[in-house]
Amino acid sequence: MNRRTFLQWSLLGAGLALGAGARPARALGKRLKLSFKPYTLNLRHAFTLSTTSRTTTPAMLTQVEYDGISGFGEAAMPPYLGESQESVAAFLSKVDLSPFSDPLALEEILTYVDGLMAGNTAAKASVDIALHDLVGKLLGYPIHTLWGYDGSRAPRTSFTIGIDEPEVVKDKTREAAGFKVLKIKMGRGTDREIVEAVRSVTNVPFTADPNQGWSDREEALDTIHWLQEQGCLFVEQPLPKERVDDLAWLTERSPLPILADEGCQRLTDIRSTLGVYSGIVVKLMKCTGLREARNMLTGARALGLKTLLGCMTETSCAISAASQVSMLADWADLDGNLLISNDPFEGTTVENGVLTLKNLPGIGVIPLPGLKIP
Amino acid sequence: MNRRTFLQWSLLGAGLALGAGARPARALGKRLKLSFKPYTLNLRHAFTLSTTSRTTTPAMLTQVEYDGISGFGEAAMPPYLGESQESVAAFLSKVDLSPFSDPLALEEILTYVDGLMAGNTAAKASVDIALHDLVGKLLGYPIHTLWGYDGSRAPRTSFTIGIDEPEVVKDKTREAAGFKVLKIKMGRGTDREIVEAVRSVTNVPFTADPNQGWSDREEALDTIHWLQEQGCLFVEQPLPKERVDDLAWLTERSPLPILADEGCQRLTDIRSTLGVYSGIVVKLMKCTGLREARNMLTGARALGLKTLLGCMTETSCAISAASQVSMLADWADLDGNLLISNDPFEGTTVENGVLTLKNLPGIGVIPLPGLKIP
Repeated sequence: MNRRTFLQWSLLGAGLALGAGARPARALGKRLKLSFKPYTLNLRHAFTLSTTSRTTTPAMLTQVEYDGISGFGEAAMPPYLGESQESVAAFLSKVDLSPFSDPLALEEILTYVDGLMAGNTAAKASVDIALHDLVGKLLGYPIHTLWGYDGSRAPRTSFTIGIDEPEVVKDKTREAAGFKVLKIKMGRGTDREIVEAVRSVTNVPFTADPNQGWSDREEALDTIHWLQEQGCLFVEQPLPKERVDDLAWLTERSPLPILADEGCQRLTDIRSTLGVYSGIVVKLMKCTGLREARNMLTGARALGLKTLLGCMTETSCAISAASQVSMLADWADLDGNLLISNDPFEGTTVENGVLTLKNLPGIGVIPLPGLKIP
Repeated sequence: MNRRTFLQWSLLGAGLALGAGARPARALGKRLKLSFKPYTLNLRHAFTLSTTSRTTTPAMLTQVEYDGISGFGEAAMPPYLGESQESVAAFLSKVDLSPFSDPLALEEILTYVDGLMAGNTAAKASVDIALHDLVGKLLGYPIHTLWGYDGSRAPRTSFTIGIDEPEVVKDKTREAAGFKVLKIKMGRGTDREIVEAVRSVTNVPFTADPNQGWSDREEALDTIHWLQEQGCLFVEQPLPKERVDDLAWLTERSPLPILADEGCQRLTDIRSTLGVYSGIVVKLMKCTGLREARNMLTGARALGLKTLLGCMTETSCAISAASQVSMLADWADLDGNLLISNDPFEGTTVENGVLTLKNLPGIGVIPLPGLKIP
């Protein structure tokens, strides 16, 4: 919106009865331009889940330019989820934004992007995030403000403790002293040792993420009862997502909420979680971005499901984007940027354990000097 | 947003790394002011449902002012729904917007309004609509544009044919010649005569609304099969909402979608419609306004439910507001303003059967000269 357009619309905004106005011109003849560049995230600690361990995560940084304004986005691709820098580059090469003259037409643009190919959710999220950053900058407000959410009501975030030897777990727990909640990765048969190592250092509440790593439902229920006594808040994806009957059995009996992570990727998966889980984990990289994440969070809440807003290992770009809708979630686990040593953005931070949004237009990030995409 | 603030934010918007900016001042020290005035809608035709008939509908016009800008809203209160000018005035008198310094903080403001008292959904909608109109005007864009929807993709709307003698039904059908879909009110034991009267005049598809007026489920199923042969698209609320088992039985067997109207008021009611109905009817006056309507439409679609965006007898104010989200619905029935003879607003119109939005900031309405609230 240039100044002339702004003034023209201010007149209309003043409620003058001028009759049907034309659509604001925005930048007539300007085009949306998407660019992207592979970026490898270096992890501060090797990251161990129930089935894998690694020291880097491949990512892709994106940028959508319009009339001299840049919106930033990101795809993060933990290898076990099937996307890679190659697949994301291939997908983004197919995205042609040039027919869209209005960057505000997000429903139309993102429906087109989603329809290009199945899957590729992180690649799609990288476009969604960059477009939201752009739209917020064009309108001059943070996305959370445009959507009516109070940025000062963002929740605390957990900090993730990976699977490791007890002494290493203790060290990591000490490093996480500023956090009011911890998330403990589990599922390799050493769950109780890890929790006891954490508990020898701190008494803050924690959440449990076995990442489908448990197998026996009776044993899972026993473990959950024990975890509750230790101060656990909820359990993510205890059993493989295919074991729907066992998950429903467990959810019915569990004293803690059981959340679907692998078991719920997108908005249309929510229906299948009813009666099987007591909540869902929403992640931008699973659900194609902010637009769908917002709908998942409001929809799940309306259905009586608990919600955790989570993340992958990712930069402050995707974390800051997610933080724009974090006030909608029961819990947040947005620590992915804290796990890397080469973050190319400054954005949402954690102050006294609580997500603290930058009050900037768009998703609230500042690229570090020298960042060029591509 | 004054011009200085606009320019300040444009700089930030340009992506300059200025660090965390303060929240834009908007109009510092300005206050939101709500006013309202009773307004009686005069109906062009007496309006007959399965259980009532009337020639007027009580309404309440609202206005929220901020820094010299006015947003307009409306509550419409068909008497059988329990709200009245008295109850709405009593509710609005309790609404104190003065503590809210930021009109964009809709989640916070509308959560406060919703929490004041149970029920009172039309009264709440009248505040929601006025605030959305105000916010759109402050930002300088139509609400549908701010929400990323393409205003040119609004659907066709049906036109309602009330219950009457066959000759009167024929006259009304002739008057509705420009519409591509009709909605036929039923449930007084004369359903087939009315449909036959309509069919003697036109072959356009129609929808059926017995308003809980049928009683026997087997007979209902027979009627639905017959209606399908006549070109019916769906059936709203065939049986009383309490008869959940019979409704589920009917939905399972019906060749046409069965939509919950009385059976689904608000976002949190959607879960109880699963397995009972195949879709829902969303109305601003039932669900407290645009913010919840948007969430209901996106949520219902994600659950595989069909959606009809409907209305009460109401002015172009509430109709234009509803039309902002009409692109999200499978079907629209937004003809309430066409049924009254004293509409105090100009807004969304019907062109060649299709909803046609004014391209104006906010909900897209212009008050007729001389309208004063209060």
